Amino acid sequence: MGTNVWNGAGRRIHMQEVGTRDGLQVEPCFVPTGDKIALVNALSRAGLAKIEVTAFVSPQAIPALRDAEQVLREIERAPGVVYSALVPNVRGAERAIDARADELNLVMSASESHNLANLRMTRAQSFQALSAVSAIARQAGTAVNVSLSCSFGCPMEGDVPQDTVWDWCARYVEALGARGVTLCDTTGMAYPGQVAALVRGFKRRWPDTELTLHFHNTRGMGLANVLAAIDAGADRFDASLGGLGGCPYAPGATGNVCSEEIVHALQLMGYDTGVDLEQLLEAAHRLPALVGHAVPSQLVAAGRRLDLHPLPADFDAIRERALARG
Amino acid sequence: MGTNVWNGAGRRIHMQEVGTRDGLQVEPCFVPTGDKIALVNALSRAGLAKIEVTAFVSPQAIPALRDAEQVLREIERAPGVVYSALVPNVRGAERAIDARADELNLVMSASESHNLANLRMTRAQSFQALSAVSAIARQAGTAVNVSLSCSFGCPMEGDVPQDTVWDWCARYVEALGARGVTLCDTTGMAYPGQVAALVRGFKRRWPDTELTLHFHNTRGMGLANVLAAIDAGADRFDASLGGLGGCPYAPGATGNVCSEEIVHALQLMGYDTGVDLEQLLEAAHRLPALVGHAVPSQLVAAGRRLDLHPLPADFDAIRERALARG
Repeated sequence: MGTNVWNGAGRRIHMQEVGTRDGLQVEPCFVPTGDKIALVNALSRAGLAKIEVTAFVSPQAIPALRDAEQVLREIERAPGVVYSALVPNVRGAERAIDARADELNLVMSASESHNLANLRMTRAQSFQALSAVSAIARQAGTAVNVSLSCSFGCPMEGDVPQDTVWDWCARYVEALGARGVTLCDTTGMAYPGQVAALVRGFKRRWPDTELTLHFHNTRGMGLANVLAAIDAGADRFDASLGGLGGCPYAPGATGNVCSEEIVHALQLMGYDTGVDLEQLLEAAHRLPALVGHAVPSQLVAAGRRLDLHPLPADFDAIRERALARG
Repeated sequence: MGTNVWNGAGRRIHMQEVGTRDGLQVEPCFVPTGDKIALVNALSRAGLAKIEVTAFVSPQAIPALRDAEQVLREIERAPGVVYSALVPNVRGAERAIDARADELNLVMSASESHNLANLRMTRAQSFQALSAVSAIARQAGTAVNVSLSCSFGCPMEGDVPQDTVWDWCARYVEALGARGVTLCDTTGMAYPGQVAALVRGFKRRWPDTELTLHFHNTRGMGLANVLAAIDAGADRFDASLGGLGGCPYAPGATGNVCSEEIVHALQLMGYDTGVDLEQLLEAAHRLPALVGHAVPSQLVAAGRRLDLHPLPADFDAIRERALARG
């Protein structure tokens, strides 16, 4: 009976950090450039497989990431770690390539309504713009990953048909030759059965394409979705240090799944995440001071499973009184 | 490849509400008796399988539940719902039986340190006291459930050996004839691989004993643990409306898994929880007014997966401008 997903048996899972981009971009305060660089360096040392360092967007649109060039140029690059940057257009791609991004992350939505509301373009227009970005990346020899928002549902339209997801994946993988695709659960609508089906479908069609799953914990299903994805063959996940990154459609709700929570859980199950949890947690504990508020991470609040608590100060007296009662 | 735990296929899962006891007992304010009764009645109507209504403890020790008799006497009892009450001793058992509890819930810890720190008795003393309670319940024809705290680890001792858990289960099931056992993850130390092993071990030894799993979401593994338990053969879970109920060893951390989050997830996966999620959510939305603060429930914050959001007010203009760009 049952599966072996609960027992990782040393299987490799690649953890990708998105907090420095997806998390910091929604913070109202500007995190100083030196602190951002120190944070990325700490994440590199902790053993993350990929770090989405920043976004090359308009500084007017997202002032929190207006130091993208400097951050990407000045981080210490650890061997084996992929340093990715989000780029929305040709100008952003040129800037990111110039600052030596290992990978450009391109974003559009599987939902027409969400793409229009969020990016002010139709999906067809997004594809056209990102085709141009892709051409520039190819010329520069820089890898491309495509993040498909709302792959598990749209907060305005509801369910997104699987065939719609496949259509857009096919264009990027087959027509543009993207190295990787990220199926994004942008507003936490994914659930395990759906995740397993989508991962199996993707792996069947594009077995050689790097597949990432990007879950939000908006409705408490983040870790369960990660496990359903692993059970269906996925081995690469986005997560955000401290659980940084909100959800604009659910004020007060949790956003991205939390890096240290996912690593903690996967390590207990025997997966090889390549991550030094202690270093990751140290970085997470420094986050509240950086962003000026508490972070959603439950591991920051509660500690690891075996971070034990002392006995009560009067424990010996309690025991003596108990034993005296016979 | 993979399991079918992600696809419930109509399998029955029994959901048991503990918020009215485990949640309310730690609230600093006293929830008026009439409101407690209305809450239990709403939970009955929503289709919970069992409700831990209250605790018959010393009113000095837990003033929040000083109205235990009145609540248990005055609730409307729905056919098929089991109304349970926590009792720590003979006096509590007599009061609970007198107020027509369907089931007495007896608590001790699998960890000696936790039992002493929490109950001021050795485990042997607890067993002796609960044996007397059990005898009274048998005389009265009232069912007994035993909740074994720290079955998945102790916040002071660390791992609790499986054999220790089996020893105490054996005493209650085989020596005292308890109808049910709840393995409690009192401080959120359980993880899926461990859960699957413990559930399989219990079902093998005591296939006819009602087994409940009581998880906390302290480290974000609550739903994953529920699914690992289901995969290993469990079908009965405690949960708390709104996620009420803290964790004294992790201030700020989440306590009990949240009833509406678990029901929402299990229903999406095709399990039959017997619960009307809409009614459950209505009750959860009334909780903040009852307890005077926000509740941890992410479903209260974010709504159900398909509770859609309106398009932006200027959506038509956005689309027209986009299309005008060609």
